[in-house]
Amino acid sequence: MNAVTESPAFALDAWSARQLAAVEQALMCWVAPPDRNPAPAGLGDAMRYAVLDGGKRLRPLLVMAACEAVHGKPDAALRAACAVELIHAYSLVHDDMPCMDNDVLRRGKPTVHVKFGQAQALLAGDALQALAFELLTPDDGSVDVRVQALLCRMLAQAAGYQGMAGGQAIDLASVGKALTSECLHDMHRLKTGALLQASVMMGAACGDSTPAALAALRDYGAAVGLAFQVVDDILDVTADSATLGKTAGKDAAQDKPTFVSLMGLPASRNYAQELLSEAHHSLKASGLGQTAALAALADMLVNRRT
Amino acid sequence: MNAVTESPAFALDAWSARQLAAVEQALMCWVAPPDRNPAPAGLGDAMRYAVLDGGKRLRPLLVMAACEAVHGKPDAALRAACAVELIHAYSLVHDDMPCMDNDVLRRGKPTVHVKFGQAQALLAGDALQALAFELLTPDDGSVDVRVQALLCRMLAQAAGYQGMAGGQAIDLASVGKALTSECLHDMHRLKTGALLQASVMMGAACGDSTPAALAALRDYGAAVGLAFQVVDDILDVTADSATLGKTAGKDAAQDKPTFVSLMGLPASRNYAQELLSEAHHSLKASGLGQTAALAALADMLVNRRT
Repeated sequence: MNAVTESPAFALDAWSARQLAAVEQALMCWVAPPDRNPAPAGLGDAMRYAVLDGGKRLRPLLVMAACEAVHGKPDAALRAACAVELIHAYSLVHDDMPCMDNDVLRRGKPTVHVKFGQAQALLAGDALQALAFELLTPDDGSVDVRVQALLCRMLAQAAGYQGMAGGQAIDLASVGKALTSECLHDMHRLKTGALLQASVMMGAACGDSTPAALAALRDYGAAVGLAFQVVDDILDVTADSATLGKTAGKDAAQDKPTFVSLMGLPASRNYAQELLSEAHHSLKASGLGQTAALAALADMLVNRRT
Repeated sequence: MNAVTESPAFALDAWSARQLAAVEQALMCWVAPPDRNPAPAGLGDAMRYAVLDGGKRLRPLLVMAACEAVHGKPDAALRAACAVELIHAYSLVHDDMPCMDNDVLRRGKPTVHVKFGQAQALLAGDALQALAFELLTPDDGSVDVRVQALLCRMLAQAAGYQGMAGGQAIDLASVGKALTSECLHDMHRLKTGALLQASVMMGAACGDSTPAALAALRDYGAAVGLAFQVVDDILDVTADSATLGKTAGKDAAQDKPTFVSLMGLPASRNYAQELLSEAHHSLKASGLGQTAALAALADMLVNRRT
């Protein structure tokens, strides 16, 4: 008998559709719902525009998959999934502003500042970050306070100066410079890696697991986070704007250092596959039973076309 | 015997100096300290510039005073005090940006975007907001996880779309418009009142108190929050830039509705005194013993000259 796979085929599409139905519904319900808790003076419209009806929701899927791997509490994970997505969404809103990347297209639609003005975009981003922490701290008893505090800590660290914001500062400072491989890794480990890794760890925090399993999940998150960026850099030079839903070729046009500019396209593709192998290895090393969704997400993330 | 005061004279200056020594030291230590946890690429410099060595620290003082009133835990209160100040500081950084108020002077110094550029200012504000929640969730056992979760919830609500960010959106939309008294109150209740009230309630959350005492403190916080804004509007037309450390006459120049433009200067002054009386009344109604600092802060806040 040959072609034996190590695990039965996992239907990622069906699994993702189930998770995303819950996530989209929760975001609709929790992001400044106009019928119950409207935000004043158009702020809610800008917040909802930035978050709803768009995006691959990779981070929420990682949260839900990691929660599943540790047999965690779905209520807590759903809040964590939405909170991480809000942080991601706010970072895109601010990143697209004229003083940063000055981008006019995102997910195939005008960016938030183009549609609502810069001041409202700035506020919407700020309010989305606050809302992320509000979602993590419900007072209805649905999430254990220990888990609430832990989730807030993980998200704050991943979003802040030792995480995403720090990575963006390196990015700002790096335009037009030849970065070493180490600096490029550092930048991406913070800029996109920290929040992707936090997604995995926050999902895991919704249940109990051994320190060894957590360490393995952390390695998985690091590999997946870096692979995501390598693939992003590859797609920036190989895909077109219509497929990406954002401006392609942006990095090269802005003279930003990327994995492709540093190591070339073939080596970047190999590197992405190496990181994918590392991710799978870490999942096996975790000793956790139900890691099929995490494994399939890693595959999808590296082999994606947009 | 006449001229009997209800409470012995309270030495606010000495009390404040003691509290502020602790707060300043903590902020120095916790805001991207260059010797231990430096933020990359100049981000830490911008964050520290925005926070350190400046500001009246009203919000931290309210936190510490409310904690004292309920005999709460000083460790938790110090973190809450710094977290509230970080939210305040980030809001000033973003508020001063060209797409918002476009102000170049703050606390007598160039604003953050003037000194570090708009992109870095945007990131520094974002990172300060994340850091606020990081400060509230230490993993060293110094703050009970129930209190951590509660403090995060209170701060997130006060900072977000149903608090400060929402008030700023109303502010944006109100320029050049004749607001009703009700709308003006709504705007300020959110824009500055929410965070000032949260300062009081977060201090109170660091200890135990009765629902009645909490309700009274909430009333105190609402009165003080509104009084603060009324006095701000008065000072905007009566003080000069050098005294204020920021651009005076800004509201009138930008045709922003204020309490002074709505009700005139004498009535605004009376209104501030009425709110001060309400604040004192609420403190008495709280039944709490040690409210001298809260009372003195209310006096100082209404009678301040800058």
